Amino acid sequence: MTSTAGVGAATLLADPHHDGSELYVVEAPDEPGEEAVVRLRVPREAAAEQVFLRYGRDGQQLTVEAVRDEDSADETWWLARFRAWNPTTRYRWLLTGGEIGYAWLNGVGLGAHEPPVADDFVLALGPPGPDWHLESVVYEIFPDRFASSGAARELPDWAVPRPWDALPTGHGPDTPFELFGGDLAGIEQRLDYIEALGANALYLTPFFPAGSAHRYDATTFEHVDPLLGGDEALASLIRGAHARGIRVLGDLTLNHTGSGHEWFRAARDDPASPERGFYFFDDALAHGYAAWMGIRTLPKLDWRSEELRRRMAEVLGRFGLDGWRIDVANMTGRYRDVDLNADVARWARARGGDRLLVAEHGHDFRGDLDGLGWHGVMNYAGFNRPVLWWLRGDAYEEDDYSQTPAPRHNGATAVAMMRRFRAGVPWGATLHSWTLLDSHDTPRFGTIAESRERQVVGIGLQMTTPGVPMVFAGAELGLEGAWGEDARRTMPWDRPETWDTDLLETYRRLIALRRSSDALARGGIRYLLADDDAIVYLRETRSERVLCAAKRAAHPFRPAGASELEHLFSTGTDAGPSFNVWRLHDG
Amino acid sequence: MTSTAGVGAATLLADPHHDGSELYVVEAPDEPGEEAVVRLRVPREAAAEQVFLRYGRDGQQLTVEAVRDEDSADETWWLARFRAWNPTTRYRWLLTGGEIGYAWLNGVGLGAHEPPVADDFVLALGPPGPDWHLESVVYEIFPDRFASSGAARELPDWAVPRPWDALPTGHGPDTPFELFGGDLAGIEQRLDYIEALGANALYLTPFFPAGSAHRYDATTFEHVDPLLGGDEALASLIRGAHARGIRVLGDLTLNHTGSGHEWFRAARDDPASPERGFYFFDDALAHGYAAWMGIRTLPKLDWRSEELRRRMAEVLGRFGLDGWRIDVANMTGRYRDVDLNADVARWARARGGDRLLVAEHGHDFRGDLDGLGWHGVMNYAGFNRPVLWWLRGDAYEEDDYSQTPAPRHNGATAVAMMRRFRAGVPWGATLHSWTLLDSHDTPRFGTIAESRERQVVGIGLQMTTPGVPMVFAGAELGLEGAWGEDARRTMPWDRPETWDTDLLETYRRLIALRRSSDALARGGIRYLLADDDAIVYLRETRSERVLCAAKRAAHPFRPAGASELEHLFSTGTDAGPSFNVWRLHDG
Repeated sequence: MTSTAGVGAATLLADPHHDGSELYVVEAPDEPGEEAVVRLRVPREAAAEQVFLRYGRDGQQLTVEAVRDEDSADETWWLARFRAWNPTTRYRWLLTGGEIGYAWLNGVGLGAHEPPVADDFVLALGPPGPDWHLESVVYEIFPDRFASSGAARELPDWAVPRPWDALPTGHGPDTPFELFGGDLAGIEQRLDYIEALGANALYLTPFFPAGSAHRYDATTFEHVDPLLGGDEALASLIRGAHARGIRVLGDLTLNHTGSGHEWFRAARDDPASPERGFYFFDDALAHGYAAWMGIRTLPKLDWRSEELRRRMAEVLGRFGLDGWRIDVANMTGRYRDVDLNADVARWARARGGDRLLVAEHGHDFRGDLDGLGWHGVMNYAGFNRPVLWWLRGDAYEEDDYSQTPAPRHNGATAVAMMRRFRAGVPWGATLHSWTLLDSHDTPRFGTIAESRERQVVGIGLQMTTPGVPMVFAGAELGLEGAWGEDARRTMPWDRPETWDTDLLETYRRLIALRRSSDALARGGIRYLLADDDAIVYLRETRSERVLCAAKRAAHPFRPAGASELEHLFSTGTDAGPSFNVWRLHDG
Repeated sequence: MTSTAGVGAATLLADPHHDGSELYVVEAPDEPGEEAVVRLRVPREAAAEQVFLRYGRDGQQLTVEAVRDEDSADETWWLARFRAWNPTTRYRWLLTGGEIGYAWLNGVGLGAHEPPVADDFVLALGPPGPDWHLESVVYEIFPDRFASSGAARELPDWAVPRPWDALPTGHGPDTPFELFGGDLAGIEQRLDYIEALGANALYLTPFFPAGSAHRYDATTFEHVDPLLGGDEALASLIRGAHARGIRVLGDLTLNHTGSGHEWFRAARDDPASPERGFYFFDDALAHGYAAWMGIRTLPKLDWRSEELRRRMAEVLGRFGLDGWRIDVANMTGRYRDVDLNADVARWARARGGDRLLVAEHGHDFRGDLDGLGWHGVMNYAGFNRPVLWWLRGDAYEEDDYSQTPAPRHNGATAVAMMRRFRAGVPWGATLHSWTLLDSHDTPRFGTIAESRERQVVGIGLQMTTPGVPMVFAGAELGLEGAWGEDARRTMPWDRPETWDTDLLETYRRLIALRRSSDALARGGIRYLLADDDAIVYLRETRSERVLCAAKRAAHPFRPAGASELEHLFSTGTDAGPSFNVWRLHDG
């Protein structure tokens, strides 16, 4: 028996495998009481005499024996059926007898003893999210820094105007107020560029009127900030994007508002106002009310209020957007002994119609991603950090997120970490989560990688690991940034000589690859190899098999076997870091 | 870096250690906002340069750096402080630099990468349960089978009377109805025996009027079954027990009632009755209502009913008991898309006053044991099964619980499994959970062990592993039973020649040891060694250190070191299975 971490390359494909992809979940019920049909793939080396599936029903664990479904010289496929009774059903496999002896298989892999349900495979009823999202590459835009239409506008009192080509100060009292003047019309003018890059979804950080350049301190959710062009500019941008098949997502904070928000002002000024119950007023607290991280300008919302829910439901449907990124989703609805997080997420999904909801979540999101609330998360814990810790350069010594020393993981540990955070969440929620190398809240990956070659390996992983790639605008041109605020640099439209055109071309090719492949959008993942310097894996659907090899240094792995190989992507030389993708055609 | 499973003996004590016991949790807050002070013990071999503690607050993760608290030639103690803001706070340690390099420590041990919160250490505010419980050894009595006072009583229609010395049929239509005639006065008459054994808490399986000998199908919660002697017999038994310092626990099913229950009859007969909302009536279901495992006679309760809560709150306080074992706790409050399990558990704790609440839970209980609801569980997953799979004989080939092949674990896997199910629950909830080798629902451990020597090793583990030992009456005399019903045999009071008096004496000695030791009641646990045939561990409080060595076969381990050893228990020969306990006196 083997496990992923710390084993040699040869053994990885010899492990029995299951994930929630179409090869393994043959029938996925939409309604409670319907039957699920699931399969397990067992290589000859790990052959079992009997296979069982254990699953939950109303808090009880039930067992069903699997039957042999397909047999070949190399492997046996086992099949089990169970009734999906609850909104989510957790399950795991038990293999006994034969070569394997006795082993459990759950989301983290094989184990010698009965495992905890937290790491189970999870089946959630119904569709996991809007299907268009799985075929998307998302392009994140921080509206003040992307592009300006040049329209003259009166600046608000808080603004510290900055010339377009200056760098953000990054640290200091002016940082949140530095206004570079990007607007929504500027974005619309650059849709050709975005389309040429291949991205087909825009994620806009907040466009609400606020008291800062980041606009996470909204003063209203009724309208788009006039500084950005107002409601009509957004409507026009959405029309222009949709005409090109590009979706548009907003950014909504459900955890707090700005202290300048009309709801908060009403609540503070009039204890009898309907908005009073939207917040946690408490004279024992420093500011007289609960606030995000204790910051006075960000009063926290109390989701026990039905009126708040009514108002927010209207916001979710406003502006004709295709979805929302939910800011601070991990804290939303949580305050002291109140924990309505799952409840708010389910409410948002129900009220959001067919709109995508992707949650910001900086650490372990497993308990908050059950297939019933947010469709996915920004996958920092299970993608961003494992990749950083495998590919980072020497200078990035402190983890920007936790302010602790940054580790350097080998490939086996990085893979174990990715699997760790896929375990215990429905497969569809993994597919609907964003594989991101950076964002407006983090250093730029290119800066951390310190090497264009390692950076490209990271981009390769981003485009081929289960999930939807999210690219922070400017990454494709080689923008730098050593921390979040420093990374919010403007796009150098007028300085094309600074563009890294090789990198841009690499992005275009990898985005095109991601968008052309069903296996990369929806396929399961099986690791072939994970050692110090190489991570090699298969992405597979019924119709397509793709082999990906990420190497952070020269490595002897070469694809071999009975399949005919179609080279889909290559970084060329294999003398150093490299990334390669092949489509397998079985002869 | 090492982990417990599969490592050599010498490395185990070299791991950094933390658990929730008093050596490691120096200040445990009772109220939100108070400061927690926690410590980490780091042996020289695993020395770190910096230590951090990561903990949750309102769904966010925060980091605090630990400081050196104590330094010796062998180890360093690090100390960290954080404000406990929510009812439970999850935390884990990060060690960096020095010998260890980079490692996380959570409830399952050391890990190379950022771990999931499900395995964190957990601090819950307030006392974990009634303190008397930690100093208890619980004796489980199935009232019909323990002892009869000889009182003549009219048998109900359902009863199939059986002579006292007959075996239960065990399988067949009569099995639930076989009445042997034990009663509460019979138990009271045997309190001398129980006191001499050393048990100081009785857990009585249900005493409510019902339609079966097991009485899990209660027809009322108002009174004690007259067949058992009625309310007065229970009051007398409790008086007699309390006079000897023996606590008395009942057995309450919150998941369902009998179909003959007065509530259910009212609900079924009158759709307008207040009891109608206690159940899930649904014409689409086979019986017209939801029932436990689909069994017609056991209609499931709907905890959305406030009136049900009002009535059950009265039951919790009835009869002057010291607590309740909660039947089918894992399913309670769960039905299709309704999941009120945590809510019901918290409600029961709040309404139960200072009464103990121990939940039946046959599988992974971690998600249902958060320190806010049930005080503890019957620890099948994290004690009973790991011990069975280490010590079972050859004949027990199928796991009675899951009807799957029974594994045979080595000591390392058994320890990994025990740690796996201690991780992610508050330490106090582990201490308040029952270490049990068997119960009225399982085969007898002695039957499974197939060897008196291995059986004694199991009893040794039961009395010295964190938790409260629960002994199913008759185990101490060597009663057999190959499955649950078969194990519900009568006590052979009149056949003393059948008593295994050596075993009885062993039980007395080990129970006395458990009750005499603060370290065994409350101490942390550090494993020294876990290999195929030996499990060796320390139980430690500030005032006492106890070393336990369980071997399932001859093994070279002998205690050594600077401490003076006081031999507290020995099975004598070390040519085969053995169990030894020493108290360590540091010179």
